[in-house]
Amino acid sequence: MVVGVVGWEAAPVPGIRLATQAAGVRYQNRDDMVLIECAAETQTACLFTKNHFKAAPVLLASANLKNAAPRYLLINSGNANAATGDLGLEDAKATCEIVADATGVRSEQVLPFSTGVIGERLPIEPFRQSIPKLVSKLHSDAWHAAAQAIMTTDTVPKVKSRQIEIDGRSVTLTGMAKGAGMIQPNMATMLCFIGTDVATDAESLKVLLKEAADQSLNRVTVDSDTSTNDACVLMATGQSGVVLIPGSESESLFLDALTDLMIDLAQSLVRDGEGATKFVTVMVNGAPSNDEALTVALSIANSPLVKTAIFAEDANWGRLVMAIGKVDCEIDVAKIDIFINDVCLMQAGMKHAEYVEALGATAMKKEEIEIRVEMNQGDGSETVWTSDLSHEYVKINAEYRT
Amino acid sequence: MVVGVVGWEAAPVPGIRLATQAAGVRYQNRDDMVLIECAAETQTACLFTKNHFKAAPVLLASANLKNAAPRYLLINSGNANAATGDLGLEDAKATCEIVADATGVRSEQVLPFSTGVIGERLPIEPFRQSIPKLVSKLHSDAWHAAAQAIMTTDTVPKVKSRQIEIDGRSVTLTGMAKGAGMIQPNMATMLCFIGTDVATDAESLKVLLKEAADQSLNRVTVDSDTSTNDACVLMATGQSGVVLIPGSESESLFLDALTDLMIDLAQSLVRDGEGATKFVTVMVNGAPSNDEALTVALSIANSPLVKTAIFAEDANWGRLVMAIGKVDCEIDVAKIDIFINDVCLMQAGMKHAEYVEALGATAMKKEEIEIRVEMNQGDGSETVWTSDLSHEYVKINAEYRT
Repeated sequence: MVVGVVGWEAAPVPGIRLATQAAGVRYQNRDDMVLIECAAETQTACLFTKNHFKAAPVLLASANLKNAAPRYLLINSGNANAATGDLGLEDAKATCEIVADATGVRSEQVLPFSTGVIGERLPIEPFRQSIPKLVSKLHSDAWHAAAQAIMTTDTVPKVKSRQIEIDGRSVTLTGMAKGAGMIQPNMATMLCFIGTDVATDAESLKVLLKEAADQSLNRVTVDSDTSTNDACVLMATGQSGVVLIPGSESESLFLDALTDLMIDLAQSLVRDGEGATKFVTVMVNGAPSNDEALTVALSIANSPLVKTAIFAEDANWGRLVMAIGKVDCEIDVAKIDIFINDVCLMQAGMKHAEYVEALGATAMKKEEIEIRVEMNQGDGSETVWTSDLSHEYVKINAEYRT
Repeated sequence: MVVGVVGWEAAPVPGIRLATQAAGVRYQNRDDMVLIECAAETQTACLFTKNHFKAAPVLLASANLKNAAPRYLLINSGNANAATGDLGLEDAKATCEIVADATGVRSEQVLPFSTGVIGERLPIEPFRQSIPKLVSKLHSDAWHAAAQAIMTTDTVPKVKSRQIEIDGRSVTLTGMAKGAGMIQPNMATMLCFIGTDVATDAESLKVLLKEAADQSLNRVTVDSDTSTNDACVLMATGQSGVVLIPGSESESLFLDALTDLMIDLAQSLVRDGEGATKFVTVMVNGAPSNDEALTVALSIANSPLVKTAIFAEDANWGRLVMAIGKVDCEIDVAKIDIFINDVCLMQAGMKHAEYVEALGATAMKKEEIEIRVEMNQGDGSETVWTSDLSHEYVKINAEYRT
């Protein structure tokens, strides 16, 4: 039972403290570095990008996670430390060692995360200067500030909380995420850090995170591009006293709340997608399988011609037809119906007899648009969320580095 | 031996006559309908879109081709007659019958082609009015006018010729094509009509067309979208007296000229890609296989983040790294080198020691940009051509229908 939904306000999670600092890695006059501390006994699960060019911090975090229970997460924005080879790996290690020195843990107990420009060496001096300050400022109530510090092209911080009751005790889940480009479903596709105070074993935690990510972060796309640095971390401190027994109803309650929180975070990434003016839900039902439903949904969500039509508020269902038809799997187009916000545009492969442009035009004016494809050829069903392709997307991405 | 390359001027092809007419299917005050007549004995080969939503004219042309030797091709721009179901098929048949009535051939000897807006019924009256006029105007020297009449969002007509000498006789190849969006390699990805005066059997002609298309039309991409109406037609009238024996050197000479012509047409589609400000060649060498080389090349060529960086003249090789890394095949990123116009930006997975931004900035200022990826892990090699993603692309596609 979800007893309280905390929206933009981030509830502290017992056992987790955070701090932020303007370290000047790349950005000036804003916080760009975050340290997260989790209590001893915390279990941590991570999902990482599937991009072959895994950034140095991704490789190191992944290795450290195998060797030790993490106590600190170190995050910087502005520089991704990606495509930096062995030197980049050394740099990432150096930053973990600075945290280890300042806190008395082993270097393997620190997980590094970076986001920003690819291909440039990470400057170490800002870490040397800032980490002691971060350690001295750790506080349970800094989630919002941390969400702000990890932003790159994001325009608003994304932080959400859920509080639920399990076995008569209150459990908190708080998460933050950053986008806002290179967002395409495939493992966790952005930086996302979630804390909770339940207790469970590491293996179960990983399964829960994967299940929730597949319904949330892995179902959003802004531009079909997959970052080199994506990571999603779930920390469970156990300090609520609630222990999740695998397969129990309590665990199921927790998974529902986690999924709900992560859908909220994932949708907020899309809403803040680069240049987004529309929030678009693409739902595909009646496909031969879930896989085919997802392929069709992503083909629509990633089509530049569909996305520009949505930006123009043009119910150009011909482009939906094109995007559905171009998928590389067997489909029977003569059975397909297409709806926009419950207006039926196409029925059984051709324009609905009663459809007139005015109906589509009205539907497209809304800020939230649902494109629903009823394939009528099976039980496969999937939903993805995306944004439109606007002048602003081109502007943001043509100007990001310069 | 190529004895003469005719550029924008289209050489007449003995045995082929064309006519154009302002029929008012959708556009006003411009020619929008073309009739092509080929002499008796002409062999015709066609490639059609792989999109599942094949337009009615694609379905009908494909069926007619199996039943009879084509004598007329009827093309209209402005309305694609796609996603129009059985009624669309009846409409396409009706247009073929009008041609048959006006010329005395059987309806199956007419191949219909349409390009333009998807999902709207094709108005028949403009065909009834215009076809008799078209028949009366047929002329061997109307290739340029025809290339103009089949344009939709194209800004310039695309028509090219080659004249070669085979067995002491002159052979002509003239082709026209139209883009300029929904261009993604997969079968012939636009409308393209080529005439030649060699003689060969239908089966060999199809093989030659497929081979040439795989090196040309199937290697260009503007926006990763695949149209419902794409078709490429090769008509061989035999009137030069040159007969191509399968496997002969003469056939090989002809294939070279055909490929050269079709690369020229394909590149002109990219140069006129919607909103294109750059012509980009993406070459991938040393991949584990040709398939993987093509996957990597297309991942780069279709990445919105890469395309916006090119528009901004930003040598943002981090985005190239991302686009290479996101492919779903096994690659060793630590071996990869990246060049832009022969400037080495990345060597063995990290920034080249001598690379400085100024070198990349200079390379990116050119109108023609070559991105070369040396994977150093096999013999696979492929080249694709693409354009950038500009403000103008969004503008064109946000305003196309309205």
